[in-house]
Amino acid sequence: MTPKGAKKGLLIIYTGNGKGKTTAALGMCVRAIGYGWKVCVIQFVKGSWKYGELEGIKRLAPEVELRVVGEGFVGIIDDDKDIEVHRRAAREGLDMVREILVSGQFPLVILDELNVALDLGLVSSEAVRDVLNLRNETQHLVITGRGAPEWLQDMADLVTEMREIKHPFQKGILAQKGIDW
Amino acid sequence: MTPKGAKKGLLIIYTGNGKGKTTAALGMCVRAIGYGWKVCVIQFVKGSWKYGELEGIKRLAPEVELRVVGEGFVGIIDDDKDIEVHRRAAREGLDMVREILVSGQFPLVILDELNVALDLGLVSSEAVRDVLNLRNETQHLVITGRGAPEWLQDMADLVTEMREIKHPFQKGILAQKGIDW
Repeated sequence: MTPKGAKKGLLIIYTGNGKGKTTAALGMCVRAIGYGWKVCVIQFVKGSWKYGELEGIKRLAPEVELRVVGEGFVGIIDDDKDIEVHRRAAREGLDMVREILVSGQFPLVILDELNVALDLGLVSSEAVRDVLNLRNETQHLVITGRGAPEWLQDMADLVTEMREIKHPFQKGILAQKGIDW
Repeated sequence: MTPKGAKKGLLIIYTGNGKGKTTAALGMCVRAIGYGWKVCVIQFVKGSWKYGELEGIKRLAPEVELRVVGEGFVGIIDDDKDIEVHRRAAREGLDMVREILVSGQFPLVILDELNVALDLGLVSSEAVRDVLNLRNETQHLVITGRGAPEWLQDMADLVTEMREIKHPFQKGILAQKGIDW
């Protein structure tokens, strides 16, 4: 179940403070199903996907599978859950990634917002590195989220920084349906 | 046929030399169909979309329509077509955009690689500006391509630069199926 004709699986990072990181990963799903590939999207930040994405991605089923981990740690500072609850969830997420990579079923695996879990210290760089090294040589792996650490960028084959040049908030425009959610 | 509940249509630019611009636009299509929106994607550079994208986007039909204009002017320097042929094609593309915007049928319109046509001088900034001004106040418009001119960025509500930090070519890795095409 490796992508036919693929020579080398890439580790791809979408990072930066601009919009388009998760959106580009969604676009990669569209391209992948064009080749009949199976894709697994692992969403590390619960609640980061809103109605539009959640409904839209259903149209890419059954090839594209979405799995959600985490305990909503975007708002970790505000919430009253013990940090250990978040750590456990993130670790369980990594266990899930391990299984998925080892299964070899998915030519493309997307770890959405994993950078955020790393940044918050919910998973260690060692644990992530060990898991990433489990992918086979033709599996593509995409990691999204602002603040991709240096060591991860060093390890990657392709890194794009989505840089915010201009944001509607600057003009006082509120978040828009279909664009922000 | 305006997006329900939308307050303000945004002009969104994905530019820069990194990967993920058209891919993010594809991802926006997925989110949009999650809301049942109709989307029109106008591909200004013929041949820039390969098998994966072309097959994948079919899964988003009928809500997402792809229309191709242009004469393959990516290779304009190499080819032996008269520049006037390319200019005419680009102008016809703008005419198509005009009709689509005025029809008001599409809450989201994507002008893929229009920046390239601008950069090559195949369409004038005045002609593009006039067409963009035709959209109604709730229509979202996305323009992709490297080299978005300053005046267009000034006009936009949201600009993301996809900045290339690291590219597989730098390691001697060839373009990969499912990633580059």
